[in-house]
Amino acid sequence: MSNQKLFNVAVVGATGAVGEQILRLLAERNFPINELKLLSSARSAGSKLSYKGREITLEEAKPESFDGVDIALFSAGGDVSRTLVPEAIKRGTVCVDNTSAFRMDPETPLVVPEVNMDKINEHKGVIANPNCSTIQMVQSLKPLYDRYGISRIIVSTYQAVSGAGARAIDEMLRQSKEIVAGNEVEPQILPVGSLPKKHQIAFNAIPQIDKFVDNGFTYEEMKMINETKKILGDESLEVTATCVRIPVVYGHSESVYVELKQDFDVEEVKQLLADAPGIVLQDNPEEQVYPLATEAAGKLETFVGRVRRDLSNPRALNLWIVSDNLLKGAAWNAVQIAEYIAIEQN
Amino acid sequence: MSNQKLFNVAVVGATGAVGEQILRLLAERNFPINELKLLSSARSAGSKLSYKGREITLEEAKPESFDGVDIALFSAGGDVSRTLVPEAIKRGTVCVDNTSAFRMDPETPLVVPEVNMDKINEHKGVIANPNCSTIQMVQSLKPLYDRYGISRIIVSTYQAVSGAGARAIDEMLRQSKEIVAGNEVEPQILPVGSLPKKHQIAFNAIPQIDKFVDNGFTYEEMKMINETKKILGDESLEVTATCVRIPVVYGHSESVYVELKQDFDVEEVKQLLADAPGIVLQDNPEEQVYPLATEAAGKLETFVGRVRRDLSNPRALNLWIVSDNLLKGAAWNAVQIAEYIAIEQN
Repeated sequence: MSNQKLFNVAVVGATGAVGEQILRLLAERNFPINELKLLSSARSAGSKLSYKGREITLEEAKPESFDGVDIALFSAGGDVSRTLVPEAIKRGTVCVDNTSAFRMDPETPLVVPEVNMDKINEHKGVIANPNCSTIQMVQSLKPLYDRYGISRIIVSTYQAVSGAGARAIDEMLRQSKEIVAGNEVEPQILPVGSLPKKHQIAFNAIPQIDKFVDNGFTYEEMKMINETKKILGDESLEVTATCVRIPVVYGHSESVYVELKQDFDVEEVKQLLADAPGIVLQDNPEEQVYPLATEAAGKLETFVGRVRRDLSNPRALNLWIVSDNLLKGAAWNAVQIAEYIAIEQN
Repeated sequence: MSNQKLFNVAVVGATGAVGEQILRLLAERNFPINELKLLSSARSAGSKLSYKGREITLEEAKPESFDGVDIALFSAGGDVSRTLVPEAIKRGTVCVDNTSAFRMDPETPLVVPEVNMDKINEHKGVIANPNCSTIQMVQSLKPLYDRYGISRIIVSTYQAVSGAGARAIDEMLRQSKEIVAGNEVEPQILPVGSLPKKHQIAFNAIPQIDKFVDNGFTYEEMKMINETKKILGDESLEVTATCVRIPVVYGHSESVYVELKQDFDVEEVKQLLADAPGIVLQDNPEEQVYPLATEAAGKLETFVGRVRRDLSNPRALNLWIVSDNLLKGAAWNAVQIAEYIAIEQN
């Protein structure tokens, strides 16, 4: 690929947990970069990050930062995206946005490459990366949706603390250490940084991720419900979610009940999953093989196991789906989209 | 109650995690005890435990240990119960069995006092205490079952490590400490002591509790399915369970989707739960109030929150149910049954 086009790339929010993984993946994947800009808040500007052995100085993200930038990957929070994505688009930049700012905008494609890659071509300057908990579920259900149709999904999540950022990880590890030592802890970050009440996450399960909506669901749950319908392009799909934070560092796990529209054979379901792109089937109860967060951490794939026909409804399946929330759930999905854009423009 | 009848009581498995709580509760509740026998394996026999300030020497549990015993509470594993419960019954002892040995025996009442207390009277010498994860769910669903009828239950659990015994707690705390310190760990107990493969429980979610059945479900999941139908006395009920161990010390949490047979009003549902015996409604999203394992630990009640109408099915509800698995899930439910027996015989 010696004549490969090289791109001016910007990473917005390069110091965050997701930004860090985006940088690592761009380097590992040898992304065709001409110039790499690392953009951050004014507070982080001036500090340096390493990319392929070079030191790059962080610059404060401003509208004019995007002059001459071909592709920008945003993961600096919804407010930053709402302000700067339109500025970047004005300057001709194609944006891959990892926040919820544009996900439900009807003009913005919401993309999991293994599910609806083709939607990328419809973009008007920005492609939205779905929520972490949505991506791994939709990716796993896509081969079943295509083969059998899906009428209903009921999901309960077991979500890792890294989804709430590096400070939440620190908090959980510190709390764990203190509690094992017999000391009291004073929660300071979780469940939601911007809300007044705090709950202990170490040795606990918190049924709140993000704020509550008036209907009693959380925003995280509504994201799973609405984004799943949008990505599969099926408003008739019935989806229910309960999202729970548990003391895991990396890797979201999901208990998924799914009603199919046709009869199915469980062995065929397993084969479809095993053959699906980016999916690893880990399903051998006899050998106690099933997906585990600790084993999915650091991997790009989504792991599916505990595949079994429902006992009460023969048209339903139960699945256990695990993936690294910072990778397929965020950075890797975004880099996959960026790679597609790069290939299309070559 | 000066003329109250006093009972000769035996606790079998007094050194275990549940046995310890049974002893504590018998003392706290001032159970009308004449003589208290603490029975154990040969290995523990001879050591002493304290009850109301008295030291009691553990005796090896044998058939003749039950001579003259009125009420025995068993929590020493299924094999011990299968061997010794029939011997105790022969000797006129009424047994409350906390193991799975007799739960599905059609002759044995399976009792959650708030749900089917009346079944105790049908006993033929043994009353079975249901599985921990079943008790808190059935107790919470009973008022809804009575008022609206229930057609389907889909539950995913978040179960505490104490359900696997004191050694599993030690393992989790030790693993947590080592991992925070940056060290490797070598799992030795969980997920199932008697199976060869071990998985890290600290900072993980293990979708296996107990061994697997041929249908791809675990015994723990089948217990929830079968026991729920038996306790509610409704074989037409459709139940599906996914049981998961998470790094929590005390308190099982459950994400429950339930389809009712009639229309309902969410505020009425909350009122029914708030008024139900042994249930505490903790449901105030605005104030971030919902049940938490860390807060349920050490309490006798079952806590219910996140009560909301399903968005895809207006006849369905979602709930978050938490209770201390060693108390209402085991010791307290057993002591409640023993109290009923004592009152009936007075």
